[in-house]
Amino acid sequence: MLQFVKKEKVLPFKKEEYQDRVKNVKMSMEEQGIDVLLITDPANMNYISGYDALSYYVPQGVIVALDLEEPVCIVRLQDLFCATETTWMITENVIAYPDKYLWEPKALHVMDFIGDFLKGKNLHLKRIGLEFDTYFFNAHWYKSLEKCLPDSTFIDATSLVNWIRGQKSEKELEYMNIAARIVEKTMTNAINKIAIGERESNVAAGIYNDLIIGTGEYGGEYPSLAPIMPAGDRTAGAHFSWTTEGTYQDGQLMYMELSGSYKRYHAPLTRTIFIGEPPNLVKETAKIVIEGLNVALDKIKPGVTCEEVEKAWQTTINKYGLQKESRMGYTVGLSYPPVWTENTAYFKPGEKTILKPNMTFHMMPGLWLDGYGVAITETLRVTETGCETITKFPRELFIR
Amino acid sequence: MLQFVKKEKVLPFKKEEYQDRVKNVKMSMEEQGIDVLLITDPANMNYISGYDALSYYVPQGVIVALDLEEPVCIVRLQDLFCATETTWMITENVIAYPDKYLWEPKALHVMDFIGDFLKGKNLHLKRIGLEFDTYFFNAHWYKSLEKCLPDSTFIDATSLVNWIRGQKSEKELEYMNIAARIVEKTMTNAINKIAIGERESNVAAGIYNDLIIGTGEYGGEYPSLAPIMPAGDRTAGAHFSWTTEGTYQDGQLMYMELSGSYKRYHAPLTRTIFIGEPPNLVKETAKIVIEGLNVALDKIKPGVTCEEVEKAWQTTINKYGLQKESRMGYTVGLSYPPVWTENTAYFKPGEKTILKPNMTFHMMPGLWLDGYGVAITETLRVTETGCETITKFPRELFIR
Repeated sequence: MLQFVKKEKVLPFKKEEYQDRVKNVKMSMEEQGIDVLLITDPANMNYISGYDALSYYVPQGVIVALDLEEPVCIVRLQDLFCATETTWMITENVIAYPDKYLWEPKALHVMDFIGDFLKGKNLHLKRIGLEFDTYFFNAHWYKSLEKCLPDSTFIDATSLVNWIRGQKSEKELEYMNIAARIVEKTMTNAINKIAIGERESNVAAGIYNDLIIGTGEYGGEYPSLAPIMPAGDRTAGAHFSWTTEGTYQDGQLMYMELSGSYKRYHAPLTRTIFIGEPPNLVKETAKIVIEGLNVALDKIKPGVTCEEVEKAWQTTINKYGLQKESRMGYTVGLSYPPVWTENTAYFKPGEKTILKPNMTFHMMPGLWLDGYGVAITETLRVTETGCETITKFPRELFIR
Repeated sequence: MLQFVKKEKVLPFKKEEYQDRVKNVKMSMEEQGIDVLLITDPANMNYISGYDALSYYVPQGVIVALDLEEPVCIVRLQDLFCATETTWMITENVIAYPDKYLWEPKALHVMDFIGDFLKGKNLHLKRIGLEFDTYFFNAHWYKSLEKCLPDSTFIDATSLVNWIRGQKSEKELEYMNIAARIVEKTMTNAINKIAIGERESNVAAGIYNDLIIGTGEYGGEYPSLAPIMPAGDRTAGAHFSWTTEGTYQDGQLMYMELSGSYKRYHAPLTRTIFIGEPPNLVKETAKIVIEGLNVALDKIKPGVTCEEVEKAWQTTINKYGLQKESRMGYTVGLSYPPVWTENTAYFKPGEKTILKPNMTFHMMPGLWLDGYGVAITETLRVTETGCETITKFPRELFIR
């Protein structure tokens, strides 16, 4: 027998939580003078509508309008079932476009379909917010929408939804905690697997295996970014993955930046490992990174600004004649490829964002020096009175 | 001791092959009236310069100019070592921008850095080609570049490099063949692992493990898209991945669309599996898909158009009263997330592209019917006289 029977759909959040999110987004739209918001970032689409599929390589979107009670999810016809299955809205608010809107650079574009939808609802002359600075709203989509709606007013609404996502709900934190348990177990196994002569790709294979097998109770999902795990001189580059045939060598430094993922919520964690007997230079650098990390974590509480947190770190490493040019942390949570950042607040100079309870960050202190790099990081939550790390893992230089 | 000694860098292709690619791109630029090409798609950047890192979540680019002998690779300062380590050009042609160009929506943008670079080289008043329709050139980047270079002329150069990538070299085919060996082994193990009561996430974990462990001789890389592997009624959606806690059930249909990856070259493969005793309806559908696949493969040879290939498939399934609305194939090769398509020719109605030797496609015949879907696919190469599949795997409905 063929199981065609449709099971009851179970979404990661209650309908009320999605509705609250929509309410918050609408409030922010009103503040920013936006009547209609076209959401094309897959994480934002998921946050508002629940939509979750691997279809984000074609144009799609969720529309929130002050005049519409529910969001409207627009996907490719082939993905209609994925959308009805994962969204909370009534069926009429899940709409599909046929393939004729795709793969034809000179002809119809999905933005024509979306533009026509807005015209049909008489929303096209309202003030329309667009997520200009996401990977999922490229220059061609923008030009196509402009051409379809020549009389419309477009407003930059980049990160409007991302900012709403900042303070996590209890359920969201539950998912981030599951992701943290997954990455802790994965990191433990990966560190144990590293040995002289072991292939880098074998360790990477074990990492993916563990990230997806999950905790036992909970299975895992694919992370939004592949493991960053350079070894040897490649640690001097901040974004190298494994090599396919390279093996670990005696006297090599390596670090791993990994994230568990559950219901697309992420909890990244980085640790540095030395293979063999570490020289003093590396031990000292690790000690400085850990001191800076601890000082910065201690600084965190509601009311403090992001730049103050970064300064605590920078001041600490400056004592040792070191400095980090790049940001040392960013908001994290729900995400899709190509990366797991939330694209709102950063721990960096000049960042005036004030910390609030249940904001979640990946604090990313690392030093990339001449010929090598050390990074030891945590995913954290701002509590009512301070900070707790969501990832719980020994803060030390590991030796194999 | 710390291994700071820099190893000799080994690139996936000889310098001459990269130089030939640049020559071909420059010829295409001349034909299209483009003097300067800004390449921001990571696969195109890799193709031209060799650049390979997990840094594609920040703006970066490769510039090819008729007036410049070599391409220029522009990356974030943190990624400078990744770039010098993976590109073939002289050091002067790898340039880094500091973090002040990032994370500041209202201030400087990386496109200001790139615009200033073009001004410095006196290239800004030439005709500048931009990849408008890639995920890695969003509306905000475009507006930023326009603002920085108000007097420049921008020309749509979407897929210019992608089209050059179409006919694969011997070495590229070697990498696609390795990717094919990897995915075949992975598919075999995954099918064997599927059983009543087995967790979907355990099978997914095994898939990633096998994709990255590789063939024994060769390790693997992460695929540009996570495995598509719906089971049961979820097969009616074309882009579902695994569920975290769901288990396979007796009487369930499921399919897996997977790809091996080697040096970022991909070879996707899809097979459909029935758990238990398949009903006639499913057996018949699989038979029709396989017949359509074989007929379409037989149609392929140099000189034939893409639409003729699609028609061979469509005519076959039409005999049985069925039709597929979506394209049934696309070019494939080098890629980064969010997807492995090459974004040039498609097997679809109206596609006049003429097949040439060593073009490579993922032929994707699948039927998504009421309540279930069947897909059985191959990665193929157009030969001098016909077609050979790069993936070699039994074309049948698997039963577990």
